[in-house]
Amino acid sequence: MIRVLVWCEHYQDREDEAVRAVYPEFMHNAIAGFLSEDADLSVKTATLFDENCGITDEILAETDVIIWWGHMLHHEVPDEIVDKVQEFVLNGGGFIPLHSAHFCKPFIRLMGTSCGLCVEGYGKHVINCVRPAHPINRGLPEVFELPEEEKFTEFYDVPQPDELIYISGYESGRVFRSGCAYHRGRGKVFYFQPGHESFPIYRDANIQKVIRNAVYWVAPNKD
Amino acid sequence: MIRVLVWCEHYQDREDEAVRAVYPEFMHNAIAGFLSEDADLSVKTATLFDENCGITDEILAETDVIIWWGHMLHHEVPDEIVDKVQEFVLNGGGFIPLHSAHFCKPFIRLMGTSCGLCVEGYGKHVINCVRPAHPINRGLPEVFELPEEEKFTEFYDVPQPDELIYISGYESGRVFRSGCAYHRGRGKVFYFQPGHESFPIYRDANIQKVIRNAVYWVAPNKD
Amino acid sequence: MIRVLVWCEHYQDREDEAVRAVYPEFMHNAIAGFLSEDADLSVKTATLFDENCGITDEILAETDVIIWWGHMLHHEVPDEIVDKVQEFVLNGGGFIPLHSAHFCKPFIRLMGTSCGLCVEGYGKHVINCVRPAHPINRGLPEVFELPEEEKFTEFYDVPQPDELIYISGYESGRVFRSGCAYHRGRGKVFYFQPGHESFPIYRDANIQKVIRNAVYWVAPNKD
Amino acid sequence: MIRVLVWCEHYQDREDEAVRAVYPEFMHNAIAGFLSEDADLSVKTATLFDENCGITDEILAETDVIIWWGHMLHHEVPDEIVDKVQEFVLNGGGFIPLHSAHFCKPFIRLMGTSCGLCVEGYGKHVINCVRPAHPINRGLPEVFELPEEEKFTEFYDVPQPDELIYISGYESGRVFRSGCAYHRGRGKVFYFQPGHESFPIYRDANIQKVIRNAVYWVAPNKD
Repeated sequence: MIRVLVWCEHYQDREDEAVRAVYPEFMHNAIAGFLSEDADLSVKTATLFDENCGITDEILAETDVIIWWGHMLHHEVPDEIVDKVQEFVLNGGGFIPLHSAHFCKPFIRLMGTSCGLCVEGYGKHVINCVRPAHPINRGLPEVFELPEEEKFTEFYDVPQPDELIYISGYESGRVFRSGCAYHRGRGKVFYFQPGHESFPIYRDANIQKVIRNAVYWVAPNKD
Repeated sequence: MIRVLVWCEHYQDREDEAVRAVYPEFMHNAIAGFLSEDADLSVKTATLFDENCGITDEILAETDVIIWWGHMLHHEVPDEIVDKVQEFVLNGGGFIPLHSAHFCKPFIRLMGTSCGLCVEGYGKHVINCVRPAHPINRGLPEVFELPEEEKFTEFYDVPQPDELIYISGYESGRVFRSGCAYHRGRGKVFYFQPGHESFPIYRDANIQKVIRNAVYWVAPNKD
Repeated sequence: MIRVLVWCEHYQDREDEAVRAVYPEFMHNAIAGFLSEDADLSVKTATLFDENCGITDEILAETDVIIWWGHMLHHEVPDEIVDKVQEFVLNGGGFIPLHSAHFCKPFIRLMGTSCGLCVEGYGKHVINCVRPAHPINRGLPEVFELPEEEKFTEFYDVPQPDELIYISGYESGRVFRSGCAYHRGRGKVFYFQPGHESFPIYRDANIQKVIRNAVYWVAPNKD
Repeated sequence: MIRVLVWCEHYQDREDEAVRAVYPEFMHNAIAGFLSEDADLSVKTATLFDENCGITDEILAETDVIIWWGHMLHHEVPDEIVDKVQEFVLNGGGFIPLHSAHFCKPFIRLMGTSCGLCVEGYGKHVINCVRPAHPINRGLPEVFELPEEEKFTEFYDVPQPDELIYISGYESGRVFRSGCAYHRGRGKVFYFQPGHESFPIYRDANIQKVIRNAVYWVAPNKD
């Protein structure tokens, strides 16, 4: 049993009507929902609006993998929580920052770089797998598309991934390393780009499969 | 269920009395023996003295992972078999060359380098884990020893491992990258150095655990 | 002074009128031409139609870096020459296979994989740099385009590059790891994709700069 | 011309008589001294006791590569200086933390991990090169020794190096990844372990050669 904590900022899916229309159950519940279909995962949720921003020592002690989605309120996460999440990963925990969480403080801390990138708007987003045998790609085609999604482009200022799994490409010919796996300390990190709040990305069967596979890959070894 | 084929040269454990004393049941049976204790592994054996040197299309079609031990008779393995093993790996199969199999033809083929190394004799062999969270190190200490084992030293002419897991060190201060993991095509390769035929290395509980964990790591994704 | 050997197959630029129109001086001379403008490079050429296919022990003894372009006649290169080129690299030489040389025998030998890839025709080819500080990108923009070039796509069956420098992207959203750097033995390899024979790619100032920079990067250390 | 800033904590070589005996001219001057013999390097020094701890915007604007040695007073370096050094590297600068600088704040920031390690005392320290063709090893043997040096051991909690160049080994069989190269942003980092203050390590010809080579490797590309 892998214990997953789906942490979401929970701002736009509360305040912005267009986003609420996409995720009326809220984004954290959408993500927790599809993961809960896997009987080997035990899934909880937390948001920035919970006590201590949703991250306490008690919660972390019962968590194997944190999925993190944030966009507008990264600066509201206090540094003590960043310390806790970094320590959680270095001690063996799994961490999956999604989409705009490239700019969340725990990811920036764990990467050591700015994590900056470029953005070119919205449109067709093609996900190309460059490591098809990786367990994160289990059961997926080697290329798949999102008809409408935000398009991040290079230069993406992260360390060269230990394992580069996905590269996204767009009509412009610009590209983005969109699925990047890292070992950090005794833990593992997988950044995955899809998930703009305006599109029902987390209802896409392929995207769900990648995230579920990633939970297994980042989860700590158990003896 | 992962289907494992333990392929051994089966020369010294047949011809050399000292080696027969260490592995009276033969080395392939020793390795298959401890793996068979895991109910999720289905283990068969083959040797150079079997029909077609033990590797046929029929056998490969029923194999997920090949463990390969050879020393004196690498040159007896025909190139058509090397072709088959390379294709097996590139199409998704797992391959675990052990010890002197750094010089087996399929490993040299898959690495693209000479796979040469230096040797400094026998003695205490300390295995240091430099990636403790890797699934291949599951359940193992971060340092463990073999009281008597052959000592390979650098420069080891292999590509930089995609994932360097173990480094062996000796009293001389010389070292060797002894646990090296690679993705090749849609398959995976894990080279592991311990296993000189004169010492009962494959009866060591830690070594058995590494090899069993490696079987899981190199095994193909199944949907 | 770095001694460069530009080896080209020299078939289409001799037999195919359309290619001759692009490279009336022949492709090897085109490549050698722009490299010769650098006073620190000493550049020679060779082709498949020279004695011993252009590769002899004497020539290799006076060479630091081999640039290799081939397309239709890979199978005409005898295995003894592949042995020589592999040994040249493992002993410290530099090797730069260009474009369709992903399928040349020395590159396949050095990679250990099939080096297969997909092709989607011709059109706009955007080269995205994902490691802007790499010496191979010295003096180049982080994104540049070729208006008309062949488009290779993933999955490209090579080992994960030690240093991934360029990713090409196309209108379809498909991508290709087009600039891949490897250490092999004591030598270095840089694969670079642009260079289809029907377009004057090797007259493009950015492409020339990448190839010249790569010569410096793959060149052996001199004391 | 590469502009090098040798930054040293300058505490033990001022306060501790035993260290003063090893480096009567002070450690920063010892390091700057051997680098200054290279006419292509322009070398300055700074210490924690200079204005603004030795790091100002003006100084950084005139620096290509920072060499950093610290041990007892890491905590005295204010976070604003860590920000400046991180930014310097991400924008293209070179950074070479030496020895106990594995625990300096700028290195911890750039790595994203704890940078913790184990220590087993003093004694013979053997440096094994596992990437002999790397420019940092130019002109050096593949194995060399320090008769008396501090011995750091694994697990060293840093990200897997982009390029692992040296592994140190000791009589105990314990090892340490002692020469680790990283790309970070548009800059480069090389951590090198030798340099305990009680031994004249920076007077060793091989050590001097590694550090000088590393200056060239981490230096920014100039057009």
